[in-house]
Amino acid sequence: MAPTPYLTLNDGNKIPQVGFGLWKVDNATCADQVYNAIKTGYRLFDGACDYGNEVESGQGVARAIKEGLVKREDLTIVSKLWNSFHDAEQVEPIVKKQLADWGVDYFDIYYIHFPCSLEYVAPETRYPPGWFYDGDKEVRMGKASLESTWKAFEQLKKKGLAKSIAVSNYSGALLLDLLTYAEIPPAVLQVEHHPYYVTPNLIKLAQQHNIVVTAYSSFGPLSFIECDMKIAQDMQPLFEHPVIKQAASAHGKSAAQVLLRWATQRGLAVIPKSNSQKRLEENLNVTDFDLTDAEIQSISDLDMNLKFNVPTNYGIPIYCLA
Amino acid sequence: MAPTPYLTLNDGNKIPQVGFGLWKVDNATCADQVYNAIKTGYRLFDGACDYGNEVESGQGVARAIKEGLVKREDLTIVSKLWNSFHDAEQVEPIVKKQLADWGVDYFDIYYIHFPCSLEYVAPETRYPPGWFYDGDKEVRMGKASLESTWKAFEQLKKKGLAKSIAVSNYSGALLLDLLTYAEIPPAVLQVEHHPYYVTPNLIKLAQQHNIVVTAYSSFGPLSFIECDMKIAQDMQPLFEHPVIKQAASAHGKSAAQVLLRWATQRGLAVIPKSNSQKRLEENLNVTDFDLTDAEIQSISDLDMNLKFNVPTNYGIPIYCLA
Repeated sequence: MAPTPYLTLNDGNKIPQVGFGLWKVDNATCADQVYNAIKTGYRLFDGACDYGNEVESGQGVARAIKEGLVKREDLTIVSKLWNSFHDAEQVEPIVKKQLADWGVDYFDIYYIHFPCSLEYVAPETRYPPGWFYDGDKEVRMGKASLESTWKAFEQLKKKGLAKSIAVSNYSGALLLDLLTYAEIPPAVLQVEHHPYYVTPNLIKLAQQHNIVVTAYSSFGPLSFIECDMKIAQDMQPLFEHPVIKQAASAHGKSAAQVLLRWATQRGLAVIPKSNSQKRLEENLNVTDFDLTDAEIQSISDLDMNLKFNVPTNYGIPIYCLA
Repeated sequence: MAPTPYLTLNDGNKIPQVGFGLWKVDNATCADQVYNAIKTGYRLFDGACDYGNEVESGQGVARAIKEGLVKREDLTIVSKLWNSFHDAEQVEPIVKKQLADWGVDYFDIYYIHFPCSLEYVAPETRYPPGWFYDGDKEVRMGKASLESTWKAFEQLKKKGLAKSIAVSNYSGALLLDLLTYAEIPPAVLQVEHHPYYVTPNLIKLAQQHNIVVTAYSSFGPLSFIECDMKIAQDMQPLFEHPVIKQAASAHGKSAAQVLLRWATQRGLAVIPKSNSQKRLEENLNVTDFDLTDAEIQSISDLDMNLKFNVPTNYGIPIYCLA
């Protein structure tokens, strides 16, 4: 297997182009999955407060380090600020809690998870807090501007708690507005990105500003079927789409590999997850073949501007993130 | 004809629910069209620096006032700040120039036209300045944050230069961010809105926050065909869509009236334009019949999340507004 290439960020740090995404990884198996992914060759782990598995992820990392498989500095450990911690004075305390959960003393990348401030919920009350102020009924918007949160992020970087600071789920206009007030620009933009949701202008804008784009949900509807999302269930699965199958067959690769290569060949980073060892290996092995320009174009042409990861698609009454 | 209903804004001001949109109104006929629209019963005129016809629009208004058809206070005169005037110190001077062009001493509504700051171009150099710094080749982004521009807008309202202040082409996340720092919330959100681009979450968010939504390009692709936009030319025209035609036939109305009623019945304001007297009258007459819930739903179901008014669709290399 070819070694995973590294991408250089605008702050000089480097990250693997392929990582392991921790969203929806079960707490019961998470430590083993992280440990096993490290053994398989993964070096980037993309976590978040909201995924609820940072303690277990850290246990997997600790075991791998203890056994001498890797050192901390070999790993790119990524986490995200949840919406209810956007108030500037809440940022550092929650990062320190998340670092303690992982058992590390810095994050390689720390993201604003969503451009959406929710009212503060104390970790002692409920953690991770989720979208609802009271657990399951009332959504309460917060009062933190995105600028005030970003200013707190700049402090995280200056203090060494995060080596790179970044944003997720930002639109182009939000990104440009951020750039007007940022002293330190974001190093990475993480967004939903697959052939049904290509957002070519957003990708171009980020790349113009030397911001690396990390694609999440590279397999499209598949990621959301397990969330019981009807519009995902109703879509043609990308693994069975003739355009994807044809490219896979032409290169002797799996459909998953074609989807990940479509992103990595265009300069994006990807963070698939898998519960199977075979697919874990396949997903990492997506930079040693090249799709033709025509294949890339025909995959991009599947675009339907169809974003799955919208709160209302889960029945959560937040209307600002469509 | 039933009188046009008025909507009450969150600042107490009232605006007609149906107005006349000045985008793409020819300079040669603009003054007559505005005068004639007033005669026909229109009381809201939706203009902008960028439309390049504020002088002529003002001439039409002046003639109608001079002939005693209306008084200034009977009219709702609307304009918009162009992107190259986002720097806080440029806002008041350009508003005063725009007021002078119209020949009035206040705007009823003044919008941020796009959430996108471009580098300043002096009016003496080129007016309206358009998207390109040098007229036709180079786009130069500006450095004004949306917050700094909004703070200047709040001063416009305090000084009486604009009775209501508002935003156009904002997404939900931009709107919520604005609400975190606004001392005066926007009174209106003006956005592209038609059955191929419904953005139900954005509409719901604005209405939750008591912000009136004004729909532009209510007829969908039709507005953009005259701009030689290929994706608009390729779409089925809404006037010929069976769902629209069926509702039109059921109510004895035109397809245009059905499209406008679909918006007004859901609480939105609309700003169609027309060059024909018959359609001018028809377009104003869109609040005296009701579509059934099933008709409204079937029209909303045509949604394809397809936004036409994106700079790249005109060949303008601005990637932040998709």
